[in-house]
Amino acid sequence: MSHQGHYSIGLDKTPANYVPLTPLSFLARSAAVYPDLTSTVYEGRSFTWAQTYERCRRFASFLARRGIGRGDTVAAMLPNIPAMNELHFAVPMAGAVLNALNIRLDAASIAFQLDHGGAKIILVDPEFTGVITDALKLMSGPKPLVIDVDDAAFGSGRRIGELEYEAAVESGDPAFAWQHPEDEWDAIALGYTSGTTGNPKGVVTHHRGAYLNATSNILAGNLGQHPVYLWTLPMFHCNGWCFPWTVALAAGINVCLRKVDPAKIFELVKAHGVTHMCGAPIVYNTLVNAPGAQGGPIADKPITGLIAGAAPPVAVLEGAERIGIKITHVYGLTEVYGPASVCAEQPGWDDLPADQRAQLKRRQGVAYPLQEAVTVIDPETMREVPRDNETIGEVMFRGNVVMKGYLKNEKATREAFEGGWFHTGDLGVLDKDGYVIIKDRSKDIIISGGENISSVEVEDVLYKHPAVLFAAVVAKPDAKWGEVPCAFVELKEGVSATEAEILAYCKGILPGFKSPKAVIFGSIPKTSTGKIQKFALREQAGSAKAISA
Amino acid sequence: MSHQGHYSIGLDKTPANYVPLTPLSFLARSAAVYPDLTSTVYEGRSFTWAQTYERCRRFASFLARRGIGRGDTVAAMLPNIPAMNELHFAVPMAGAVLNALNIRLDAASIAFQLDHGGAKIILVDPEFTGVITDALKLMSGPKPLVIDVDDAAFGSGRRIGELEYEAAVESGDPAFAWQHPEDEWDAIALGYTSGTTGNPKGVVTHHRGAYLNATSNILAGNLGQHPVYLWTLPMFHCNGWCFPWTVALAAGINVCLRKVDPAKIFELVKAHGVTHMCGAPIVYNTLVNAPGAQGGPIADKPITGLIAGAAPPVAVLEGAERIGIKITHVYGLTEVYGPASVCAEQPGWDDLPADQRAQLKRRQGVAYPLQEAVTVIDPETMREVPRDNETIGEVMFRGNVVMKGYLKNEKATREAFEGGWFHTGDLGVLDKDGYVIIKDRSKDIIISGGENISSVEVEDVLYKHPAVLFAAVVAKPDAKWGEVPCAFVELKEGVSATEAEILAYCKGILPGFKSPKAVIFGSIPKTSTGKIQKFALREQAGSAKAISA
Repeated sequence: MSHQGHYSIGLDKTPANYVPLTPLSFLARSAAVYPDLTSTVYEGRSFTWAQTYERCRRFASFLARRGIGRGDTVAAMLPNIPAMNELHFAVPMAGAVLNALNIRLDAASIAFQLDHGGAKIILVDPEFTGVITDALKLMSGPKPLVIDVDDAAFGSGRRIGELEYEAAVESGDPAFAWQHPEDEWDAIALGYTSGTTGNPKGVVTHHRGAYLNATSNILAGNLGQHPVYLWTLPMFHCNGWCFPWTVALAAGINVCLRKVDPAKIFELVKAHGVTHMCGAPIVYNTLVNAPGAQGGPIADKPITGLIAGAAPPVAVLEGAERIGIKITHVYGLTEVYGPASVCAEQPGWDDLPADQRAQLKRRQGVAYPLQEAVTVIDPETMREVPRDNETIGEVMFRGNVVMKGYLKNEKATREAFEGGWFHTGDLGVLDKDGYVIIKDRSKDIIISGGENISSVEVEDVLYKHPAVLFAAVVAKPDAKWGEVPCAFVELKEGVSATEAEILAYCKGILPGFKSPKAVIFGSIPKTSTGKIQKFALREQAGSAKAISA
Repeated sequence: MSHQGHYSIGLDKTPANYVPLTPLSFLARSAAVYPDLTSTVYEGRSFTWAQTYERCRRFASFLARRGIGRGDTVAAMLPNIPAMNELHFAVPMAGAVLNALNIRLDAASIAFQLDHGGAKIILVDPEFTGVITDALKLMSGPKPLVIDVDDAAFGSGRRIGELEYEAAVESGDPAFAWQHPEDEWDAIALGYTSGTTGNPKGVVTHHRGAYLNATSNILAGNLGQHPVYLWTLPMFHCNGWCFPWTVALAAGINVCLRKVDPAKIFELVKAHGVTHMCGAPIVYNTLVNAPGAQGGPIADKPITGLIAGAAPPVAVLEGAERIGIKITHVYGLTEVYGPASVCAEQPGWDDLPADQRAQLKRRQGVAYPLQEAVTVIDPETMREVPRDNETIGEVMFRGNVVMKGYLKNEKATREAFEGGWFHTGDLGVLDKDGYVIIKDRSKDIIISGGENISSVEVEDVLYKHPAVLFAAVVAKPDAKWGEVPCAFVELKEGVSATEAEILAYCKGILPGFKSPKAVIFGSIPKTSTGKIQKFALREQAGSAKAISA
């Protein structure tokens, strides 16, 4: 602590007036204050906040007994089931770091993450035992202990682990004296970005940021007390945008959900009185176009829906309103704990015509309530661009809701934080209101069904095909997925290949969602320095308009 | 930062991912995001958030030009007018510390605080230029620069300062580059307790705690976005329970108010659509019993009212409901930034009969959302008492919403934080729900009209009267003020005095609200060790029941 004249009391922080910020406090408080309120419902099971707290303490004690402690990694390959929510507390209660794996990934990517993150334990849902078995074989480092998380709601699947989650919970101490993090700057979670150069980066977040963004969610989404939160957003995406911790702070109900199934969702909305949900545009689009949603509102009271992952198309915003979901657009990245900007609603928007309102709501917006700043900056001069809706710069964040850094990658961390701002790699403008609008993605990320796809990763695969001379992958608008990868291929002289061959080749290597959905053959336009002109390709693919505001 | 295995990135906190927590960020954000929304209304004047931000920056720059900087003290003797709200930002923007003076205090108490706090500037409302003139004369140290804050709404009063607030604001730089606190642990405010031994203690709060408790208020009071907040609670009370910062975070409207005047309040509630307010029971009681409140709700929509200062009588809770104010009981002290516990409402309470609901709502409750803990502890063993509604212990807090310490008083700070908890000095029990219920005040504080009165201070005055042998002062229930001081006096042998004489004597020395309202003559009961048995006196004064739950 630096000197502040006679206001330096002579006594530094004490346990009475200083506690490291951690979202674990939220669970402890809700268990104490609202022990009998429902915390979680899933397929006929339900827990109270007292029970969830006890289960987390039990599993944390199990972890501690297995030697898991401060700075160890625990990985999870789970859908949005109660166990996945519990791990957001139980793992850090043991001092460890939760690495939630993207359940759509292939074995090679998972093996990379398990090796790089040094996972000591992995929890696996029966749906994913196959890919995890493969991933474990592909690992180069020491293999983690495998724990199955059985789910009666998932019919098939075999066990591959040493023990089962419920048995581990059962074996734990319900009164386990979990410790606060020694430092609020301690890591709480590890999440891999889709990467831009084939090598995904391990984003390390800390307790302080998780605490603040979990609180921010309540402010930005007007959650109030006791929200009923539907888990349409994967918990492996930036820790479900911090919502496991948010719902604990608000003492709400986690309505768990294995997968986005409209009929199931409509049933849960009615049965539990859902008030809030999050998701990519595709989630809302699926609901809007589902049978059963044609008759108007799906709930008695309006649902608040946070949307992110790509600027929501006007049709989605309008459709969502029609079925009774009031949308707030948020924007962020793994590096900023999920949403860290919000298209803050201004009084009067509700009185505007729907299309005009939707245009306003599509913007990426302003800093999240407890985030310090988001803006568009010229990365050369590090000056903010004018509010002219025209001058393109890089979208940058600054504040306490920015990651600790990239795991084992001080260089990338340093670069990401250059000039005192976190560089998102997204290109945008500022409009006259100072709202950020994203115009393009400098990293060429394709967002398909809410999942990030690195064009470079797909290009790497294409380049390995013997007939390919040049390859470039850009986003192509898609009614269902928002965007899908579209490949441009320039063939080597004297060889030939068909679209079907190339597509099949990619599918043999990449997971389905990353594989291109179309191939366009021909000469690829390049700049004088040999750089591929992706903008021209995007125009050809029809996505140039789709990704500008 | 301590070591956390391979999760130590190699890069410490950077400006990109670490910003000291300060409520000043709330003002900057609301000015950026909601520049044209109203921030403040008062007597025909109104400001937007952009204007309030600009005014604060101007005054901060004025302060900086006058040499006010980090760790300097700026005092204010102001009612709830816009300037008082602005100082909560402008003063810390200059790195300085705001010492909000209790406008009901006498010159000697003010002189003590100005000397002890080392105020370099004092802002004065015309209503208080008399007492401040006297206080300045009584000071022993260097005198502060005096700035008048003119108020057209206050008819009379003379100027005593070197310049006027609006001129100072006008002279400042609207683009002043204010600095974040160097450390979130830096002092933001200084507030004097009523003290228990005549010497009030200077409670120093910091930016981190102010940030967190301001946010907590939104969560505890369900403020949502854009609340319309009526300033019935003095801003000099624990910085208005942090509400200047809360309203800035929520981008709400500050409805300012010189004094609690029911007719005025009813008018403001209607005119501005007030949604939230705070105050001591007497404030609500005044409204409930005022002409104009007899016809039912005073507003179209229910108002949320936070209440603290003494357990609210059932009649007040019921009456408030009748006039459309839904009450939430909070509890705290200057040392915990105002409210730091809340009688958290449980689902179902609304269905209970009013008296039963009121009994539940009178409890001091549980930790505030972002406070770590409040409970009742045996100060000998430092163990929590059982939840039996019977075992008395001391109410203690722990967490980030606990003061930095007492100014220039390391010893008292150390004692207050002994055993890792902040000792409130209030005695209470835990009920079966784990809710704290205060039973008595070990410090013998009398709460009159929301103001703390130290019985010891009044006793000190009584003891100076030539006829007094023993004196003891306890609370006496009062329909209007909640409690008033009642004096027990044992006269010296052979001398005589009347009640009227003693009362007049006290009024000549103490401010009106601290002066006893009754004198009871006779032998004062004492323990074997000579300690006065205040409990017996309270029974006699009829307050033993009134202050137990």
